Amino acid sequence: MPRRRALETAAIRFDIVDSPTAISAIATTTAASGGRIRTLATVRTIEGDPPLVEIELEVEGIEEDALVAALEAMDEVRTVHRTRALGTVFGKRIIVVGGGAQVAQVALGAVSEADRHNLRGERISVDTIPLVGEVNIAAAVRAVADLPRARLLVLAGSIMGGDISVAADELRAVGIPIIALNMVGSITDHVDLVISDPVQAGTMAVMAVADTATFDLERQRGRRY
Amino acid sequence: MPRRRALETAAIRFDIVDSPTAISAIATTTAASGGRIRTLATVRTIEGDPPLVEIELEVEGIEEDALVAALEAMDEVRTVHRTRALGTVFGKRIIVVGGGAQVAQVALGAVSEADRHNLRGERISVDTIPLVGEVNIAAAVRAVADLPRARLLVLAGSIMGGDISVAADELRAVGIPIIALNMVGSITDHVDLVISDPVQAGTMAVMAVADTATFDLERQRGRRY
Repeated sequence: MPRRRALETAAIRFDIVDSPTAISAIATTTAASGGRIRTLATVRTIEGDPPLVEIELEVEGIEEDALVAALEAMDEVRTVHRTRALGTVFGKRIIVVGGGAQVAQVALGAVSEADRHNLRGERISVDTIPLVGEVNIAAAVRAVADLPRARLLVLAGSIMGGDISVAADELRAVGIPIIALNMVGSITDHVDLVISDPVQAGTMAVMAVADTATFDLERQRGRRY
Repeated sequence: MPRRRALETAAIRFDIVDSPTAISAIATTTAASGGRIRTLATVRTIEGDPPLVEIELEVEGIEEDALVAALEAMDEVRTVHRTRALGTVFGKRIIVVGGGAQVAQVALGAVSEADRHNLRGERISVDTIPLVGEVNIAAAVRAVADLPRARLLVLAGSIMGGDISVAADELRAVGIPIIALNMVGSITDHVDLVISDPVQAGTMAVMAVADTATFDLERQRGRRY
């Protein structure tokens, strides 16, 4: 079974008048109620007079009822919906980046394996983007460090190196491991594990992050299959 | 070519002491500099004394240099990294939810099609989660409304209805269209388009959101292929 979250997270979505001070008003109100904002994301803008923005908010250390009451009392806040913290719905994220054909095969393996673990109470998502070129791929590797709940990156391609290898080292330094397909270029010296078969790479990626699996990436570091 | 963003977004990632007032201090400082916070996500917690949280921040209406200077001047803020707004890296998101085998086939079609559009300057991601059961799937459908940059949902399964159909209506009401595979249950009466073949469903999903494609979902609404 997955570990319990240390703290319950209250989650809501609401519309607010889009002003420069809107977010600081929200943050001040939330802090005054004892909550710690963990996520605040603008999901949509709503044209009109005044223009509104729709915001998804996740807060720790506060009951959902208290959060709803505090925000509904604010003049600038319109409709408030109760939602669920995204971590409880979409869970841990495996990110797959690279060439289309190979990304699709890694996704096939990862989705099939995630299905088996999610049936037993896990929550694992498989998020992908097909990209070409050193600049684009290196930027995506770096940006994985900015994605909430990203747990592991799979690099799916036939040739990667240069700045992609530099970005891979940076990503691993913040604690996100990388699996790469066996391929041309320096990248295979800058990842935790190299797997030749893309379906198996996706499968092992999910096994590495699933609490319901017994696979330990630490014990496989530097190996090639 | 993709449309330009109306406003440039400054993006940084930084560590900050994890206190109840940390976020309101950030929000106040940002607002005082004239910026509007669009995204604030806690990406990691860092144990220690004091404990830190690592935050990804995206702000409109402010130069990145000014944002970095304003935050670096705060006592509670530690290392500041310059990053890129996630929208410029991962772009629009197609979300695929349902049974593992079918999610994987939809992903295959969507990733292959996204590859073709991303080569021409688009940025389209394909994000998936395999789930089973009315309660889990309905929650995921509702949560798509809370995902930044989610543009379209594909429901991939063999039987869906009940609360999933209710959730589908709610999601479409906030402006996110849905494509479903042809399947048993009421869901096919609560989506924009029904496609029998999962690879084609993924392909059409990407065509529907790509500015580089000529497919117009509006003109196909309610049809089945």
